[in-house]
Amino acid sequence: MKLTTEQTKEIKEQQSQKSTTKRVTSLELEKILYEAIPVLDHGFIRVVDYMGDDTSIVQSARVSYGKGTKKVSTDEGLIKYLMRHWHSTPFEMCEIKYHVKLPIFIARQWIRHRTANVNEYSARYSILDKEFYLPESEHLAAQSQSNRQGRGNVIQGEQAKKVLNLLKSDAEQTYNNYEMMLNERYDGTVIDDKEVGLARELARMNLTLNTYTQWYWKTDLLNLMNFLRLRADHHAQYEIRVYAEAMLDTLKKWVPITYEAFMDYRVGGTEISAKGKIILQKLIKGEDVNIDQSGLSKREWNELMIAFDLKDKLI
Amino acid sequence: MKLTTEQTKEIKEQQSQKSTTKRVTSLELEKILYEAIPVLDHGFIRVVDYMGDDTSIVQSARVSYGKGTKKVSTDEGLIKYLMRHWHSTPFEMCEIKYHVKLPIFIARQWIRHRTANVNEYSARYSILDKEFYLPESEHLAAQSQSNRQGRGNVIQGEQAKKVLNLLKSDAEQTYNNYEMMLNERYDGTVIDDKEVGLARELARMNLTLNTYTQWYWKTDLLNLMNFLRLRADHHAQYEIRVYAEAMLDTLKKWVPITYEAFMDYRVGGTEISAKGKIILQKLIKGEDVNIDQSGLSKREWNELMIAFDLKDKLI
Amino acid sequence: MKLTTEQTKEIKEQQSQKSTTKRVTSLELEKILYEAIPVLDHGFIRVVDYMGDDTSIVQSARVSYGKGTKKVSTDEGLIKYLMRHWHSTPFEMCEIKYHVKLPIFIARQWIRHRTANVNEYSARYSILDKEFYLPESEHLAAQSQSNRQGRGNVIQGEQAKKVLNLLKSDAEQTYNNYEMMLNERYDGTVIDDKEVGLARELARMNLTLNTYTQWYWKTDLLNLMNFLRLRADHHAQYEIRVYAEAMLDTLKKWVPITYEAFMDYRVGGTEISAKGKIILQKLIKGEDVNIDQSGLSKREWNELMIAFDLKDKLI
Amino acid sequence: MKLTTEQTKEIKEQQSQKSTTKRVTSLELEKILYEAIPVLDHGFIRVVDYMGDDTSIVQSARVSYGKGTKKVSTDEGLIKYLMRHWHSTPFEMCEIKYHVKLPIFIARQWIRHRTANVNEYSARYSILDKEFYLPESEHLAAQSQSNRQGRGNVIQGEQAKKVLNLLKSDAEQTYNNYEMMLNERYDGTVIDDKEVGLARELARMNLTLNTYTQWYWKTDLLNLMNFLRLRADHHAQYEIRVYAEAMLDTLKKWVPITYEAFMDYRVGGTEISAKGKIILQKLIKGEDVNIDQSGLSKREWNELMIAFDLKDKLI
Repeated sequence: MKLTTEQTKEIKEQQSQKSTTKRVTSLELEKILYEAIPVLDHGFIRVVDYMGDDTSIVQSARVSYGKGTKKVSTDEGLIKYLMRHWHSTPFEMCEIKYHVKLPIFIARQWIRHRTANVNEYSARYSILDKEFYLPESEHLAAQSQSNRQGRGNVIQGEQAKKVLNLLKSDAEQTYNNYEMMLNERYDGTVIDDKEVGLARELARMNLTLNTYTQWYWKTDLLNLMNFLRLRADHHAQYEIRVYAEAMLDTLKKWVPITYEAFMDYRVGGTEISAKGKIILQKLIKGEDVNIDQSGLSKREWNELMIAFDLKDKLI
Repeated sequence: MKLTTEQTKEIKEQQSQKSTTKRVTSLELEKILYEAIPVLDHGFIRVVDYMGDDTSIVQSARVSYGKGTKKVSTDEGLIKYLMRHWHSTPFEMCEIKYHVKLPIFIARQWIRHRTANVNEYSARYSILDKEFYLPESEHLAAQSQSNRQGRGNVIQGEQAKKVLNLLKSDAEQTYNNYEMMLNERYDGTVIDDKEVGLARELARMNLTLNTYTQWYWKTDLLNLMNFLRLRADHHAQYEIRVYAEAMLDTLKKWVPITYEAFMDYRVGGTEISAKGKIILQKLIKGEDVNIDQSGLSKREWNELMIAFDLKDKLI
Repeated sequence: MKLTTEQTKEIKEQQSQKSTTKRVTSLELEKILYEAIPVLDHGFIRVVDYMGDDTSIVQSARVSYGKGTKKVSTDEGLIKYLMRHWHSTPFEMCEIKYHVKLPIFIARQWIRHRTANVNEYSARYSILDKEFYLPESEHLAAQSQSNRQGRGNVIQGEQAKKVLNLLKSDAEQTYNNYEMMLNERYDGTVIDDKEVGLARELARMNLTLNTYTQWYWKTDLLNLMNFLRLRADHHAQYEIRVYAEAMLDTLKKWVPITYEAFMDYRVGGTEISAKGKIILQKLIKGEDVNIDQSGLSKREWNELMIAFDLKDKLI
Repeated sequence: MKLTTEQTKEIKEQQSQKSTTKRVTSLELEKILYEAIPVLDHGFIRVVDYMGDDTSIVQSARVSYGKGTKKVSTDEGLIKYLMRHWHSTPFEMCEIKYHVKLPIFIARQWIRHRTANVNEYSARYSILDKEFYLPESEHLAAQSQSNRQGRGNVIQGEQAKKVLNLLKSDAEQTYNNYEMMLNERYDGTVIDDKEVGLARELARMNLTLNTYTQWYWKTDLLNLMNFLRLRADHHAQYEIRVYAEAMLDTLKKWVPITYEAFMDYRVGGTEISAKGKIILQKLIKGEDVNIDQSGLSKREWNELMIAFDLKDKLI
């Protein structure tokens, strides 16, 4: 990630702002406010605003006046209780706003989380930057043979080189032709002053899906956790997972008690079906179990055995 | 509105909090933060948290770095433009949280605005306060004869007294019986220590709909304006309108530029149908207009004439 | 539940409607369409419209043309897979609409599920029916001593009688005074033709929270299941649980494959925290476990032991 | 638009389905159910399911039993009244589901309407079709000089040819390289059986934004109208407007009364600000008006004069 001189200057200006407020303030989050945290080759996330902290959750849960904090131990117990029992509305009382730079094909996944507010850089109005995502060679994975939605081994050698070259040269060529059609370079230089440029809203269709875009993305804490649960998961595509992981760090700084409960109950937690529970109960009693009487499919059976570290029972 | 000693103490504590923040801060709103603004006989609203201000809207609209403010005049022009053309997403970038005390029958109207986060005082868990709404005599309106959803003249004299007495005595009696069934007074005193109380989640059903409840209500600026547009309107029931009006004052302190645009384009604005527009065009040209050729119903015709101050054309 | 003559007639008319459609149709659900299924003493639910069935979920998951059904076994596998892995959007492709009659205090819980469309009978506009919920004596529970939000033993004898009498007489008295203030009976008879009635939007505040209201409630299948998961749970208040249970029956008729997966993975399923999982892994290996090294609170420990039928390990 | 043999066969199968239902049925919409209506060069919309019709709106507005239809004239009056006064919830009682094929850059605009259910063809899982949008020469507009978000004159001659060639050759080349990286053609043929293909979730990033995708898109009638109001407007980009226009035709078949009210009050309607209203009132009275005393900006002034056909007053 390389910030322009102008960006660097503006971030510094934002960070030098200092106001007095009666609002609840998160000391740890203030330290990194506005900072651009690098993700992928040209992307970043920045926390640009927030509202509330762990005490706001507690206060709402108690629907009482005051800071709501008596002893941290009590707050922790209450937050864990709320998380465990899906009492979700108190977590909606905190809000956070990110500025994110990300490739378009990742933006298309991300936007499917509907309960958020979004303002995206408009390519109808402005010219997109000349920046596109090119994977590091260790992330250049082959199609998985077993899982139609997943990745297999890393592609090596000549084939890897060829793939990277294609990605790079196609992105560059389509971008150059984008400028040609616009009759304008990304820095505003007119190419041929005897011609008019194609409308921006049309020219953009020539760009490839790894072109970077950016947006402000604002959501409440509950929906942020729903997003992170799915996108920090190992099933998520690597290129969105790295954003989720960077955001997990900001979650930890912002609401440390909620973060711990979230990691324990959601991210590290497991769901067991009614049928799976019966199998586990038998295993605990030392009884024999087998797939035929379980009602589980082979896939479910294996997922359960892996979750409980029983690799000798895999089928 | 009478606050308990404990409430007064906690508000003071909250107002004495002082933190340094790099976040955007609204000076005018800070001045009234946490303050209980009286509404109706026992209700109030309090702003208890917020995020962003007018500059946040501008910044999101530009999806650019920095404070986004260059000249106030420009910001004003941009915010008016956004409001006029229903470019609504930048207004979603600001968030506000209220603490509200209100009668249950008003809470039932209010909750229909779904795009908000709510934590309400739970009568499954706790005992509701002994407070119920009783209208001032000048708000004791008769049923409108012309509009099935509206109010007519104020009820006077003996009948007014009778109505107020009924409202008061029924609320008190049902509340007393609520305590009786709970075997507990609202201050926690047990009534008969040889008996057990009815479950709170059941006993509450004996309360009347004018009993006060309270909640934290959090929403973004766009949805706040949608709420205020409908609820500060003269068609809205008086008892919710007074809440909306108190909130309009907080809107003005929080985002003064947006407030002006909102009052001009939404609250004071008018919608004209395609057919209504043709009538207005003719009127401007000094042509004759009449309802028969207009395609308007009598009701629409009159609404239009009233909106444009043409009372001589009413039918 | 007693339907009026008019209601009975209208339901018959609706049920006698017969059209030919190219839409996906659920034979089992058609059989009970429009039928009023009794809940509590005066309430009911009725399915009044629907869209899609199990095959619509499969089709959307495949985003392909055609009925999407090849073999039922495959559809079942796919639906189970979607449910297990929280691939939730295909379940949003089905929609259902209910007509529900329910006490106001239950309507207040229900409405908190925001992702639904609602049209409620308006007491600003019309007079509410003279019907209020009175619990059966076996549901007249005392306040739980251990759980502030729960029910304890059933109240018996004289106290039970007293409670029921209070509920009944207060509801009747407040309703009678409601009519008095309106100067109109619920059947439209004017009480005193020399007086005007109080505005309906005001008079309604005198009613108790066990008065029945009614609404149309429409939601997609995913959000219906979210509702049922919480409200058919044994933690839910009895008076809403009976509605959820009646709706579970309609779910089974409508989308039988989804219903089975829902019962297995959600209703009958269990969530295990990261810390809880370690305990279960040890138990399966026959190792000793104890609360001190587990990181679990006493409450969590006991919840886990109960879930896995290990009552000898309760603390 | 050219459908594959398989698609044509499946549409025929769907259209030959015939069930008996007690549900409300729209005769006109049934006639075109499942039919692929062409939009742009390779896109289409198809109505694949629906729930409710005009009578459902009326019924919900009355929250009464029965078909809700008494006389069409009454229904029409009620629907117009609801539309005029923004009583929006009854319109949420109808639901519609479309199957849409559209270019990715248009899908990115469309998805910003959040209150809809979507299942999109997944390029993580499957290979996208070799189809990309190329504008007709009469839609090859230059960038507007006056409006940064708009289109100017059509580009002609050599430059037009050059632009179209670039769009075509870049799309083809990046698609060919997409296949190369996948080591698989879109019809499933393996290219080099000694190599493995790049993961689909990665290879897709090489595609240009005019590549076609497809999805199921389901929404309620209220939100459909919100979508159409914005996207059938002349400010909308041509390439999304043509989808909105095709959908307007389906709206007319589905709910003809609502369609008429929508065209009159929303699509053909105008909003006047408080300040603009004062100007109109003066114009009707024959008084002089001028921008200086109006409080309107030049832009607002001109918008108002154009809306009321007063071109001689433009500034």
